[in-house]
Amino acid sequence: MLENRLDYSAENCSLMRTLKIVGERWTLLVLREAFLGLRRFDDFQRAIGCARNVLTARLERLVEHEILERVPYREPGMRRRDEYRLTKKGMDLATATIALLQWGDRYVADTAGPPVIAVHGACGRPVRALLACQQHGEVTPYHVRSIAGPGAKKIA
Amino acid sequence: MLENRLDYSAENCSLMRTLKIVGERWTLLVLREAFLGLRRFDDFQRAIGCARNVLTARLERLVEHEILERVPYREPGMRRRDEYRLTKKGMDLATATIALLQWGDRYVADTAGPPVIAVHGACGRPVRALLACQQHGEVTPYHVRSIAGPGAKKIA
Repeated sequence: MLENRLDYSAENCSLMRTLKIVGERWTLLVLREAFLGLRRFDDFQRAIGCARNVLTARLERLVEHEILERVPYREPGMRRRDEYRLTKKGMDLATATIALLQWGDRYVADTAGPPVIAVHGACGRPVRALLACQQHGEVTPYHVRSIAGPGAKKIA
Repeated sequence: MLENRLDYSAENCSLMRTLKIVGERWTLLVLREAFLGLRRFDDFQRAIGCARNVLTARLERLVEHEILERVPYREPGMRRRDEYRLTKKGMDLATATIALLQWGDRYVADTAGPPVIAVHGACGRPVRALLACQQHGEVTPYHVRSIAGPGAKKIA
């Protein structure tokens, strides 16, 4: 709860800015596939099943925002092509992506359970997206409140 | 990285199902305002600045999916109206919402810094969305991999 929320502008909201970049279903599905390890246009296309021009536009946009980067490769006997790899900025979207995924696992998955599970590479145990206070560790959403930050803009 | 990703169907993906419900910019902005403490139609409208019919449709959809619930109220001298409150299912979207917000704070905020900060109600310290292994605590996205879950569907 932000006190006097209506006194502040939403114009510089970081959530809105993030959604302007990745808040489109096909874009997040491209990211999903990148997190699942895909890198090549044809693989993305096959996994997502969207039109090629839609995929081209989404990849282009993700490269423009430095979430994916193009890296050239060449298969034997084929022309040079580019593959798409997650940058650090892109990898940092994993927390949000896994949080959305796990909400879905909890509330809208089939009775069979989650189709994909995120695990810790080192030990194979499940990884969870959660909220944590630097002092008290995990906190539930009911114990989080919002305060105005340094970039808050009062509406005149 | 999911081994042989292309052997599996994406049809039952929990991320896609989540995005079908909340993966639309106005919908997530309504949720943002609900997390910031707003409950009333006119307040949502003022904060988000979207057309009233768009807001009506988004609220309707969130109620339908039991993310918001309608609770009647009556101001002195006015007719009874409904306000919109987050359910448990809705509150559980906080992790994903805060993760998206914090990615934006990191990569696309103005130099002034984040306009809104999520803090632990009990102590006032910042709350962060992060990934954690039940055994090893916080893990970076580089140490997460994906494995097929019980609901994974092999493509015939």
